[in-house]
Amino acid sequence: MMNYKKYTRQYFMPPERCMDWADKEYVDHAPVWCSVDLRDGNQALVVPMTLQQKLDFFQMLVKIGFKEIEVGFPAASETEYEFLRALIEQNLIPDDVTVQVLTQAREHIIRKTFEALKGVKNAIVHVYNSTSLSQREQVFRKSKEEILKIAVEGAKLLQQLTDEAGADYRFEYSPESFTGTEPEYALEVCNAVLDVWKPTADRKAIINLPVTVQHSMPHVYAQQIEYVSKHLKYRENVLVSLHPHNDRGCGVADTEMGLLAGADRVEGTLFGNGERTGNVDIVTVAMNMYAQGVDPELDFSNMTEICDGYEHYTGMKVNERNPYSGALVFAAFSGSHQDAIAKGMKWIEEKHPDHWTVPYLPIDPTDVGRSYDADVIRINSQSGKGGVGYILERNYGIEMPPKMREAMGYAAKAVSDEQNKELQPAEIYQVFEEKFVGITEPYHITEVHFKQVNGITTEVTTTYKGEKKVTTANGNGRLDAVSNALKKAYGFDYKLVTYQEHALTKGTSSSAIAYVGIQTPNGKLHWGAAIDPDIIRASIDALLTAINHSVK
Amino acid sequence: MMNYKKYTRQYFMPPERCMDWADKEYVDHAPVWCSVDLRDGNQALVVPMTLQQKLDFFQMLVKIGFKEIEVGFPAASETEYEFLRALIEQNLIPDDVTVQVLTQAREHIIRKTFEALKGVKNAIVHVYNSTSLSQREQVFRKSKEEILKIAVEGAKLLQQLTDEAGADYRFEYSPESFTGTEPEYALEVCNAVLDVWKPTADRKAIINLPVTVQHSMPHVYAQQIEYVSKHLKYRENVLVSLHPHNDRGCGVADTEMGLLAGADRVEGTLFGNGERTGNVDIVTVAMNMYAQGVDPELDFSNMTEICDGYEHYTGMKVNERNPYSGALVFAAFSGSHQDAIAKGMKWIEEKHPDHWTVPYLPIDPTDVGRSYDADVIRINSQSGKGGVGYILERNYGIEMPPKMREAMGYAAKAVSDEQNKELQPAEIYQVFEEKFVGITEPYHITEVHFKQVNGITTEVTTTYKGEKKVTTANGNGRLDAVSNALKKAYGFDYKLVTYQEHALTKGTSSSAIAYVGIQTPNGKLHWGAAIDPDIIRASIDALLTAINHSVK
Repeated sequence: MMNYKKYTRQYFMPPERCMDWADKEYVDHAPVWCSVDLRDGNQALVVPMTLQQKLDFFQMLVKIGFKEIEVGFPAASETEYEFLRALIEQNLIPDDVTVQVLTQAREHIIRKTFEALKGVKNAIVHVYNSTSLSQREQVFRKSKEEILKIAVEGAKLLQQLTDEAGADYRFEYSPESFTGTEPEYALEVCNAVLDVWKPTADRKAIINLPVTVQHSMPHVYAQQIEYVSKHLKYRENVLVSLHPHNDRGCGVADTEMGLLAGADRVEGTLFGNGERTGNVDIVTVAMNMYAQGVDPELDFSNMTEICDGYEHYTGMKVNERNPYSGALVFAAFSGSHQDAIAKGMKWIEEKHPDHWTVPYLPIDPTDVGRSYDADVIRINSQSGKGGVGYILERNYGIEMPPKMREAMGYAAKAVSDEQNKELQPAEIYQVFEEKFVGITEPYHITEVHFKQVNGITTEVTTTYKGEKKVTTANGNGRLDAVSNALKKAYGFDYKLVTYQEHALTKGTSSSAIAYVGIQTPNGKLHWGAAIDPDIIRASIDALLTAINHSVK
Repeated sequence: MMNYKKYTRQYFMPPERCMDWADKEYVDHAPVWCSVDLRDGNQALVVPMTLQQKLDFFQMLVKIGFKEIEVGFPAASETEYEFLRALIEQNLIPDDVTVQVLTQAREHIIRKTFEALKGVKNAIVHVYNSTSLSQREQVFRKSKEEILKIAVEGAKLLQQLTDEAGADYRFEYSPESFTGTEPEYALEVCNAVLDVWKPTADRKAIINLPVTVQHSMPHVYAQQIEYVSKHLKYRENVLVSLHPHNDRGCGVADTEMGLLAGADRVEGTLFGNGERTGNVDIVTVAMNMYAQGVDPELDFSNMTEICDGYEHYTGMKVNERNPYSGALVFAAFSGSHQDAIAKGMKWIEEKHPDHWTVPYLPIDPTDVGRSYDADVIRINSQSGKGGVGYILERNYGIEMPPKMREAMGYAAKAVSDEQNKELQPAEIYQVFEEKFVGITEPYHITEVHFKQVNGITTEVTTTYKGEKKVTTANGNGRLDAVSNALKKAYGFDYKLVTYQEHALTKGTSSSAIAYVGIQTPNGKLHWGAAIDPDIIRASIDALLTAINHSVK
């Protein structure tokens, strides 16, 4: 058994109640997005990206619509330095995109960072030092005053080197390990940094409050954010930024609640890549807005392409259940879900509603480049009539009577259960053919003739176990007459309860398909279908199939 | 670009403010856990589990400590029916474990479910019907009254069949698609069901309020839960249960906030398996409690074994970044994180603090069967002195002087950057050896003799480019004397700034290792190390290595 007593809560509540955020229900506009894929994401890869992979990834981020991209920690490795130089020297940064570089608040690292920036058009210099209780005690062994001084000295050097370069770089400060820092102290440090920078409306500063390690529930983080946001100096000239990690699986909730609590900006990565459990998945946060009718200002319509690029560049996999992007996130295997989706899709065709409300599909899969056919209704032993019927209808134009759908659903499910695998549309059609189409044994019809006088008279030639019979009978219609002939010939006892037919529009031949349902005295339904260019022939074959089914 | 206007918010707020939950900070006791791995999880697999896989998975769940396990939807497939029969007939359900079965509120399905239960000791019959606006309109095309009636009829049949069986099965009702249902209406349906069951203290009912599809932020769900929880009839005899899915990536937050809002019970799966984006990951919710010092009443100390079993049975993969269980969730590649972790681990050794507070490690990886050596400090181009030093110390007993660690850190990082790969401990040691140990070219020492009179006199025989020299010099100590001899012989200009040595306790030989740092007039430090059973010889070789390093 695990010893839970060795742990305690490591976060600090703000000194006042900060719950204004909870009166808001949802995020109603897009924040400023900053991708940290190339820095925090890259830092967490077993094998960091090569220069070329980073260049390609950067282009992909620009295409999605990111206007701020943290490109690296140029003083940390040669590749990161070279990458920034390549972006600048090869003129690869669009005018409306700002690159961001990370540096610790240490002089030689800051100086190297500024060297790397030479010639850049728009840049954010992001300086940080760690402020948490545990890092102050264990790592730096310094007092609050000394830690604050590191931040202020770093802030001053940024200002000085920017002035010396004649540049107008924007600045960002992070009290790293904010979630393990007393909020009052984090606020004090941030305000001391802002007093150095004196941000203006033209040159706003960014105060980034990272969930370096997730220690609390998201509503606690939201209170911390609201507290700092309310008490920051120069607030109107400051962008409050979030940078959540995901140690407790709550990166998305932290981000969304942090936005309600007053934050203006989000740092994160695609698909939640990043150290340990990852950074917040910007795809999910953006698509969550989208799914509630809010413009996320990022474009994920080529999700499949973006997933492929991401996997190629990083060597990581997009998880099958990752919201909006995973391979299985639109899949419905269960019968009741399939049935509801099929009905929801019909509802759209019929009613043209203003908004998407299909059950079990939070968004329309085609919005992110996925397909109804391959990604949604998938058939295995958990599936049922709705899904199986839907697949046969979409792929083969088969529109069975509702009760026949049920029988076909059980048949497909049983095959999947027995073979222990998912059935593809062609395999489902095969089950349909084998169980329900054109069964001509043991009873067989060789000839049928009709006379139309008063009602219909038919002469039907049949064989059974090698024995031939010719039977004449009357009926209201042709199928009724044939049915009566068969009953007369062999003494069958059934009611013809369902007869439907329709043209088959899928495929090349202009055939019709007929469905016949008969009910035997024990109440059981038996189904047959048949396909033929001649509708009369199709209906007779369908009836014969149902009869043969009933005697098996 | 994507058309966000096609979406809207699909949830409903409760009719009164329900924010009492937000005054609580954290989940302070374990809920009743119910695993739905074998039902909702299984239902979402491309290939559902076989009977044997389900039996094995069931045993694993019992071992973890689950007391309630939803074992299937026995009326839905032959395998699920057989599985429940096997559990009962082979007597595989421990006396303190209750199995739960799911059924729609439809007569023939309920009857089949009761057949499957015959002979079971403890069971929960879980009946549901869908209550959301979109399902009422699109799927069932029924009024609120008609939908309520389905629930009530189902509830009655459960009671009737249980009475007929002379059993004392417990009952659970879910207003399925609760998150798309008006809370007042969901409450009305739940209360109508409870009026049928009239739960008592001895036989409590379960009202399960699922996030069938995640439509809102977690604090909205918490308000819905608090509202229903406050207004349920027979509340003291009802367990309010949560069943969150993860479409917006907020399954964990929904669960935790739902618990603060009054829920007593959680249905979920291991590692968040389940339809589409999955069910809530019970591992994360439980370990989140653990990491805050709360007993989760589930045992994940064999996490690696559980991951292996899960992957084997389901054919799914535990994501590398899944909290507490993923392959990378304890990994630190970045230099500053490695340094902080190494210092945090030292802090524990020195101070024996009451609680775990190591930076960047939310929990001690060894609590879940992971190792410091393989899983935490990992070296690539993002790494630095702290991590590299830590690896050499833990694996080889190498305790370099701090400044030498820095040089070694840069050396390892450069190799990783250049080779574009992670370095294993043996490869790091190889870098150490190649760069810093026993470099005997171009200057070479062949003989050293000492006389001890006043101070130390030494006679050193050296070769350089094939030319032999014998030099005599004095010093305070032996190393000082040899250093003076070398300076005299070749005119070297350096200061001997660091000398340290220690026994090497790892490995078989009882050798010592010496480290020497020299500073050249340009301020640069050069390092050498050498290993020898004789400490004097080790120190001389280390000095020579540093000198050879400086002239390269």
